[in-house]
Amino acid sequence: MAEEKKLVEEITSMAVDFPQWYTDVVKKAELIDYSSVRGCMILRPSGYAIWENIQKELDRRFKETGVENVYMPLFIPESLLQKEKDHVEGFAPEVAWVTHGGMEELSERLCVRPTSETLFCDLYSNIVESYRDLPKLYNQWCSVVRWEKTTRPFLRSMEFLWQEGHTAHATAEEAEERTIQMLNVYADFCEEVLAIPMIKGRKTEKEKFAGAHATYTIEALMHDGKALQSGTSHNFGDGFARAFDIQYTDRNNQLQYVHQTSWGMSTRIIGAIIMVHGDDSGLVLPPRIAPVQAMIIPVMQKKEGVLEKAEELRKRLSEVVTVKVDDSDKSPGYKFSEQEMRGIPVRVELGPKDIAANQCIVVRRDTREKTAVSLDQVETEIPRILEAMQRDMLERARAHRDAHTFTAENYEQFRELIGGQKGFVKAMWCGERECEDAIREETGATTRCMPFEQEHISDVCVHCGKPAKTMVYFGKAY
Amino acid sequence: MAEEKKLVEEITSMAVDFPQWYTDVVKKAELIDYSSVRGCMILRPSGYAIWENIQKELDRRFKETGVENVYMPLFIPESLLQKEKDHVEGFAPEVAWVTHGGMEELSERLCVRPTSETLFCDLYSNIVESYRDLPKLYNQWCSVVRWEKTTRPFLRSMEFLWQEGHTAHATAEEAEERTIQMLNVYADFCEEVLAIPMIKGRKTEKEKFAGAHATYTIEALMHDGKALQSGTSHNFGDGFARAFDIQYTDRNNQLQYVHQTSWGMSTRIIGAIIMVHGDDSGLVLPPRIAPVQAMIIPVMQKKEGVLEKAEELRKRLSEVVTVKVDDSDKSPGYKFSEQEMRGIPVRVELGPKDIAANQCIVVRRDTREKTAVSLDQVETEIPRILEAMQRDMLERARAHRDAHTFTAENYEQFRELIGGQKGFVKAMWCGERECEDAIREETGATTRCMPFEQEHISDVCVHCGKPAKTMVYFGKAY
Repeated sequence: MAEEKKLVEEITSMAVDFPQWYTDVVKKAELIDYSSVRGCMILRPSGYAIWENIQKELDRRFKETGVENVYMPLFIPESLLQKEKDHVEGFAPEVAWVTHGGMEELSERLCVRPTSETLFCDLYSNIVESYRDLPKLYNQWCSVVRWEKTTRPFLRSMEFLWQEGHTAHATAEEAEERTIQMLNVYADFCEEVLAIPMIKGRKTEKEKFAGAHATYTIEALMHDGKALQSGTSHNFGDGFARAFDIQYTDRNNQLQYVHQTSWGMSTRIIGAIIMVHGDDSGLVLPPRIAPVQAMIIPVMQKKEGVLEKAEELRKRLSEVVTVKVDDSDKSPGYKFSEQEMRGIPVRVELGPKDIAANQCIVVRRDTREKTAVSLDQVETEIPRILEAMQRDMLERARAHRDAHTFTAENYEQFRELIGGQKGFVKAMWCGERECEDAIREETGATTRCMPFEQEHISDVCVHCGKPAKTMVYFGKAY
Repeated sequence: MAEEKKLVEEITSMAVDFPQWYTDVVKKAELIDYSSVRGCMILRPSGYAIWENIQKELDRRFKETGVENVYMPLFIPESLLQKEKDHVEGFAPEVAWVTHGGMEELSERLCVRPTSETLFCDLYSNIVESYRDLPKLYNQWCSVVRWEKTTRPFLRSMEFLWQEGHTAHATAEEAEERTIQMLNVYADFCEEVLAIPMIKGRKTEKEKFAGAHATYTIEALMHDGKALQSGTSHNFGDGFARAFDIQYTDRNNQLQYVHQTSWGMSTRIIGAIIMVHGDDSGLVLPPRIAPVQAMIIPVMQKKEGVLEKAEELRKRLSEVVTVKVDDSDKSPGYKFSEQEMRGIPVRVELGPKDIAANQCIVVRRDTREKTAVSLDQVETEIPRILEAMQRDMLERARAHRDAHTFTAENYEQFRELIGGQKGFVKAMWCGERECEDAIREETGATTRCMPFEQEHISDVCVHCGKPAKTMVYFGKAY
């Protein structure tokens, strides 16, 4: 029991110190490890397996919309990065530069890709000739590098894994349609698979992507009341096409510029899973994304027949869920804590008494609810319990989000709500950059998005009192 | 028909200029495109889809042996790379160096990983404590960079995609067993899925991996008689463990060094698929690795009912094979050439006459054999044809390899055989580096491997006449 205590003791309570709780969970659930490279993280098997499941689910959804995967170079020549001026201004300050190859100094510096718009544009300018070549719907799974000063596991690191989709279309309408379509793919994925409800909306001019005509975002609320931008989709219009001269011949034999989009989701979303669902015992993984959905823990496993029965149960369950047996020589209590720390959705206890009663005890990770399940019905009952858990997790996350979304009718209310860091604050805005900057300066809150679902809170901007243009979600953000 | 001619005309014949044929196929089958970054290639959808299938197959096979996936940083600090002296000597001359991050010069240079032994060692030194923590069986899918002077698509490029497995074991025996096990996984995969027979063996001291105790390899013979190293597996003994201080406490509470392995296969293997199976009409993909296994080509598709029937056929076939319909407005002849260029295993022709006869015409890519298949039997017959094709491709590749493997009893024979560049040459060797170097100098041939299946050709080294130690496969290599 000394071991057991140690495992639990080392996690800080969420209520005491949320950032420390987060770091503890990330480390103790063995999702990541720090490396000898400042700001770069190691994704350990338990962490990478979550990313593999995210990849599998997203990749399938992308391909259903006609997207094809490619792989582009890791390096971007400095001259290529500089072709689109807003883009280079946004990214140049935070890239890593390769200056030497082997023993030689390079004649032109190469940056390690922070994002690959410029490379895709370069490709499209070579392979797009006629309307018959459109649309191009390409995506790549890779890592990107951004030279960040301060880093946090999953949320902000010098290198991170992501996918970046880059499309080229014949018309502006088609590009806009694709931008929104991919945002919806992200939002649906987050709700259905990660049990995280999202606010969908558009970023302000200040917050949009470098070089984009419009940036759309999905925003989630973490347990501590902070917001997390979880995926973005950009419409570039024909800006990049003009900078890179990507033209096609239309049906009337006229040269036209293409219209482009890009959209990305990264390992950052794993941070959202942790901070939306986790508790003081560790990680809680939604069943649909959990690499191991059920852990069978034999009780009194040295008794004759227990391990055999556990293995028999594992085989049967493996037809319907991903399942493992923990037959290590740790105590059952220690195993329980460990399985809780790692967020495995259900544990299945099986001891001599259970075997005698032809049952097992199924314990949900989220509610600790215990159910005795007949061994004759495990193949139907355990998936049913997992589905109920998935549904409940989404409902709880939505209830938490809704209970922590506030409306500010005036600036006094606004300051108080933001100051308490309770969650999202909805308020009206005049649309001026000056007010947006002042609000950030005075309260620390940023505009998260101008939501698609608008509400009319008042006629005037919460900050300056001039006529309001739009309702905005504000929040403090990771 | 002008278009059609163009497509075929642009491929050089294998017999005329094999390297040009290779480049033509790679480009015309749209597997890769050159990028603005010297030596870096773009994997286009048709090329990347092959890699995705390779990943899926290998990943499943790795996981069946207990391997777990992780992700390690892209960068290696110079001091970490230098910890194992043979390793740094082997790789330092060919790495890319990051010297600046954002606007600042780094205090220590970072190299872009050419391979990740040093990072895995660093991790293992942190997380391995007791025999209970062993073995560690980690793998990662990523890209690596090697600063090559001359590059060729898939075969040698500055950046390439691969997987690198890195394991740590309690004993030397276990490490050796794992090294051989993974070599067998590679060889079986190549035979069963890629229809490429492999020679398995050990590399000489000269040819082994920088820092390895022993390197094992699988070697394939290309259509032009050159050899291609297709996958390697290394046993490091405890060399890296001593350099990185990776120790564990054994069952008797004694500190011991771990024993390590690493093994890798890369996009290079796609070059082997092209050069083993391709012909003068383009790529020929083994059915088990082909992203699209069957292409339905409607004939007289404007006739009423043809496209509907083609779509109906596609739906039925999609239950058993990966299938597409080419309903573009190109001529059937052009579509035939295009499907041949892309190496799609079978085309399925369906026109009004076929529909009237309740049949379709199935044409194999490799032999052009045509079979009329009743529409009532497509779900059983087309998979059967694909399986036959897969089997025949392996048999043909094996027959070609065997017919181009020669035995040299003396140096005169050896020079003649190597000079003619007909294929592998088996010969006896004394084991001395001097002979190995001299043979290379005099003939251009390198030792491909000391095969597991040894034969006794003579008592003496083919070069120096001193007592022979081992039989070696020699060849000119990519």
